[in-house]
Amino acid sequence: MVIVMKKEAGEGLVSKVLAKVESLGLTAHLSRGKIRTIVGVVGDNSAVEPDSFACLDGVERVVPLLGPFKLASRDFKKENTVFSIDGSQIGDKKIIVMAGPCAVEDKNQVIEAALAVKKAGAVALRGGAFKPRTSPYSFQGLGEEGLKLLAMARDMAGLAVVTEVTTPEQVPLVAQYADVLQVGARNMQNFGLLHAVGESHKPVLLKRGLSSTLEEFLNAAEYILSHNNPRVILCERGIRTFETYTRNTLDINAIPALKLLSHLPVIVDPSHGTGKRELVSAVSKAAIAAGADGLMIEVHPNPENARSDGAQSLRPEEFEQLMKELRPVAEAVGRTL
Amino acid sequence: MVIVMKKEAGEGLVSKVLAKVESLGLTAHLSRGKIRTIVGVVGDNSAVEPDSFACLDGVERVVPLLGPFKLASRDFKKENTVFSIDGSQIGDKKIIVMAGPCAVEDKNQVIEAALAVKKAGAVALRGGAFKPRTSPYSFQGLGEEGLKLLAMARDMAGLAVVTEVTTPEQVPLVAQYADVLQVGARNMQNFGLLHAVGESHKPVLLKRGLSSTLEEFLNAAEYILSHNNPRVILCERGIRTFETYTRNTLDINAIPALKLLSHLPVIVDPSHGTGKRELVSAVSKAAIAAGADGLMIEVHPNPENARSDGAQSLRPEEFEQLMKELRPVAEAVGRTL
Amino acid sequence: MVIVMKKEAGEGLVSKVLAKVESLGLTAHLSRGKIRTIVGVVGDNSAVEPDSFACLDGVERVVPLLGPFKLASRDFKKENTVFSIDGSQIGDKKIIVMAGPCAVEDKNQVIEAALAVKKAGAVALRGGAFKPRTSPYSFQGLGEEGLKLLAMARDMAGLAVVTEVTTPEQVPLVAQYADVLQVGARNMQNFGLLHAVGESHKPVLLKRGLSSTLEEFLNAAEYILSHNNPRVILCERGIRTFETYTRNTLDINAIPALKLLSHLPVIVDPSHGTGKRELVSAVSKAAIAAGADGLMIEVHPNPENARSDGAQSLRPEEFEQLMKELRPVAEAVGRTL
Amino acid sequence: MVIVMKKEAGEGLVSKVLAKVESLGLTAHLSRGKIRTIVGVVGDNSAVEPDSFACLDGVERVVPLLGPFKLASRDFKKENTVFSIDGSQIGDKKIIVMAGPCAVEDKNQVIEAALAVKKAGAVALRGGAFKPRTSPYSFQGLGEEGLKLLAMARDMAGLAVVTEVTTPEQVPLVAQYADVLQVGARNMQNFGLLHAVGESHKPVLLKRGLSSTLEEFLNAAEYILSHNNPRVILCERGIRTFETYTRNTLDINAIPALKLLSHLPVIVDPSHGTGKRELVSAVSKAAIAAGADGLMIEVHPNPENARSDGAQSLRPEEFEQLMKELRPVAEAVGRTL
Repeated sequence: MVIVMKKEAGEGLVSKVLAKVESLGLTAHLSRGKIRTIVGVVGDNSAVEPDSFACLDGVERVVPLLGPFKLASRDFKKENTVFSIDGSQIGDKKIIVMAGPCAVEDKNQVIEAALAVKKAGAVALRGGAFKPRTSPYSFQGLGEEGLKLLAMARDMAGLAVVTEVTTPEQVPLVAQYADVLQVGARNMQNFGLLHAVGESHKPVLLKRGLSSTLEEFLNAAEYILSHNNPRVILCERGIRTFETYTRNTLDINAIPALKLLSHLPVIVDPSHGTGKRELVSAVSKAAIAAGADGLMIEVHPNPENARSDGAQSLRPEEFEQLMKELRPVAEAVGRTL
Repeated sequence: MVIVMKKEAGEGLVSKVLAKVESLGLTAHLSRGKIRTIVGVVGDNSAVEPDSFACLDGVERVVPLLGPFKLASRDFKKENTVFSIDGSQIGDKKIIVMAGPCAVEDKNQVIEAALAVKKAGAVALRGGAFKPRTSPYSFQGLGEEGLKLLAMARDMAGLAVVTEVTTPEQVPLVAQYADVLQVGARNMQNFGLLHAVGESHKPVLLKRGLSSTLEEFLNAAEYILSHNNPRVILCERGIRTFETYTRNTLDINAIPALKLLSHLPVIVDPSHGTGKRELVSAVSKAAIAAGADGLMIEVHPNPENARSDGAQSLRPEEFEQLMKELRPVAEAVGRTL
Repeated sequence: MVIVMKKEAGEGLVSKVLAKVESLGLTAHLSRGKIRTIVGVVGDNSAVEPDSFACLDGVERVVPLLGPFKLASRDFKKENTVFSIDGSQIGDKKIIVMAGPCAVEDKNQVIEAALAVKKAGAVALRGGAFKPRTSPYSFQGLGEEGLKLLAMARDMAGLAVVTEVTTPEQVPLVAQYADVLQVGARNMQNFGLLHAVGESHKPVLLKRGLSSTLEEFLNAAEYILSHNNPRVILCERGIRTFETYTRNTLDINAIPALKLLSHLPVIVDPSHGTGKRELVSAVSKAAIAAGADGLMIEVHPNPENARSDGAQSLRPEEFEQLMKELRPVAEAVGRTL
Repeated sequence: MVIVMKKEAGEGLVSKVLAKVESLGLTAHLSRGKIRTIVGVVGDNSAVEPDSFACLDGVERVVPLLGPFKLASRDFKKENTVFSIDGSQIGDKKIIVMAGPCAVEDKNQVIEAALAVKKAGAVALRGGAFKPRTSPYSFQGLGEEGLKLLAMARDMAGLAVVTEVTTPEQVPLVAQYADVLQVGARNMQNFGLLHAVGESHKPVLLKRGLSSTLEEFLNAAEYILSHNNPRVILCERGIRTFETYTRNTLDINAIPALKLLSHLPVIVDPSHGTGKRELVSAVSKAAIAAGADGLMIEVHPNPENARSDGAQSLRPEEFEQLMKELRPVAEAVGRTL
């Protein structure tokens, strides 16, 4: 942490800052300039709030240095985290594709989707049984009935199941049926939920919040990791910006940035990241080229009748075509698919 | 809802759209132009997703007309909603000020803060016992012990207590001690929590999400209202933008906009909205002048030692001075304080 | 400037940084911690780019301390800058209101608007003769003919004229007719234009760019000030955010923040800041309460037929009513209007 | 255009809207619902401002349908625009790489950079002689001397020259030396400059503004095209968002979106789009995979001593490596490099 004093801050105020640094068991290094004084704070200050100093008189600003996340950081663990999802390794050379409908709607829809995405090369089926929706009047998902349909489709198609969990109480139930627990973007800082999935010891797919910085994203992962659940997948799914042509702005920079900052696997959701079916293919290729470890893509056998997200869902034949086109891109960056 | 067809969309595609409109029990009005066709959809379409049409072939875009919120809207209820918080009416002529520390830290701090804010004219004490924090290593609040301290301070000072609830399971516990349940910005779309506070029948202070539109904000209120809990207070607390000089950008436009769109009381949190103690006074005055029904302000007897948010907390004497300066502003817009 | 070294950066890399600091005539203070080294750079580094250090091997990040603006800063000049616009002092106790149509359209419109705003208490007439427009097919303004109409209206109504200049070449022409040269939001970083208005020695009203930080805004003012033109008015007119209900998000925090950082007068444009006529009154009051030195408001005798910005323009009687309501607010914060 | 009337708007207000539609030579189609009335406006309304209707009483909102841009649109011209830059075709199968330093600093730097980028496979040299800088105290470029150095390097290395023009008056001078005129992000809506480069009949590289929507970007291109200059290259260079880890957020969605909306060639600047050298390689690959027609990359023989943008500039050997890695990616999407 670096504490920058105001120009007019005199000796007395600097001394108070130094006293506080010491009271926290840290060490201060002073740089006195003609114009102002800078205090470098050294020691393990990851649990100290920059704000504790920002409020002292005479302090102009405090610059935090260590992101508070530790377990999630590349500093903590140099090699990539690789783990298995129902037999497929994520974080390794092979790119993992998860696909399926936004929401589980009925038996035929799930089975049809599952068989189609399996055939095209996906290793996991996505589909929501509990849906967080902006309006209380929108379709909220089939609940446990939806989980059962997912489990059935898994057995028929030989796919892992990834599905969303929206409250701490749901975790044990969803964990019975799912191979991967998904925490949605709106819940990225629902800390009660992060604790609950951390304790479940199931792999967790954590989506980046709509307006979360990379640092906040990694801190959210840290909540899960700190419960001794090391199997976290980071998912970039677009952030909220001023642009309205697309539903979100997919932050392609986040892929190499997260790979630099963290050892965790990183996947991309181009369906939510664009919100438009006609952009999904190009952005999927971009994600692979940028180094993503996987993709999560919405596929619906009949998007015209989808109960949610139809406009961004691929038809099975479009998904199959996309998978074909992704293979050479994966190979071009030394990966397989 | 207005459905705009693509330029090249032929009769067949238009017919499919019309068929879908009818299948949902709605009525379509066609406008055929030389360049393109527009379909106006009339009827109660509040439960129909625009997306159901956006994914049809030939559709260029769908423009939703009715915000899906109903109970929260000014259309539904013309007069302002006014209700009592421990004897003080909110939403009425008198402006309500809630003040206190970010987090409850210990007995002395809470009592000192409570007595100071009461003396200066606040009617409610704010203070967090359960704190949602970006990092798992930050202070997470005192929990039930903090609630007890708040209740004690309430009794000593004669103030209502407003405190945050972060998971559905906490609601019954917090409701035992608090007069108003606060839902924080990060939880604005934690729908499980919205259901739980909706069922509690305590007044709810709902903070706007960091990147939530006004429409999403009112939809979140709708979740609470739809559980027959009509006592919701909307709180503008700043949104996330590109500006980094301030912690957030307080959206002053939101005050008159929410007053137009909704009948619910609107308050402002200038402490989080600015993140800087030296801006709180000016922005508090602005909020009152713009028509806010109340303010929520962080006050700490000793901000230098605050465990969180010290940089944006007023000292008791600063708060007292602010309250004095707010009175003429309130009167200038026909209110009292 | 504070240079933070990477954890793994060894002595050799630190030495290179120190050598570069010295080569620039600055002084370095080292803080060596167990985890990493911090280099405080002291001296007049306002012309040194942080980037010169950010690209050195071993450097993690560089934190700039002094905003590069000097002449615009409150450090440089403690007391408020006050100057006259055609006889009215701006930056002083009295709040200055500038009002008039978005664009000059014809003789009757300008005269009608001028007489109406004068009667209600405005001291300056605003109106565009050269209009920067998103589309080349939109009305681009009447040009010099518009300037002549403004000058005529000024003489009839006894108002100063504020009008926009969009290219360096226009400056001499516009300066013949205008009392204040306006630089629009899209041109805030049109540096050729900033140089030209700096050399004109006319007062300049500088609008904040749609996505400009306060630091960039003050740097743009610095361009003008550095040409020995000290008469710059800063105008907050809303920034671009994710919210679409309003045209822009008026940054109310910017008012006290600019007042802290700079000695220059600050005004607010609630018409562009909201984009909606029904929000202008509330936000105007908020701006005064927050400490603005003036307002710039769009008023059109007949908004229904305005060639631009009709939706955000007040009718003359609405403006008159607003002026009445603003007076007590101004008085409540120790100002007059 | 679709005009949505307020719920309470009666017949009289609807009639006024219809009269205005007719007075503009357009045709109205009415949809009267139980709740509200919708007016579809048909005809060539590209020169009519939505705002002309938004300000009428009884109008709730106006939804524009046709982007006002025409010449830039894919509707206007189905096939891709392809043109030559000093012998290399842009917009065709081959991907064009432009590379070089941010600013021209001296003879050795330019020559060294030019030879290195040529050797690695670039077809154009980028380098700024006129630099728009946030602060008036930053290095502003060498001016005409810089242009001469670029011309010399072009002759030595056999590269086209791309360089920025910042004011209308500079256009003739810069056009003498450059093969492509660059309009920077801060000048995307400097309409005087857009007119001037439109009249120059040189190819123009137009960078997207920091907070410009795709629609505004294409409208800016329309200004140039409407001067009979059809050779415009669109350059995505990152937008401004809340994320601070990267300098900008590269909008990867923009590449397929611009390709859908327009026939113009699209290139990507990963150097400004990320601001960090270590992210440039991954994002360059992503851009190619997403369908970009070219890249513009900052390369400096000695980034440690660069006068600007050193942190995001590649070293020659890094650029050479990147070019090698880009080739298989280009081939994977059916392109060459």
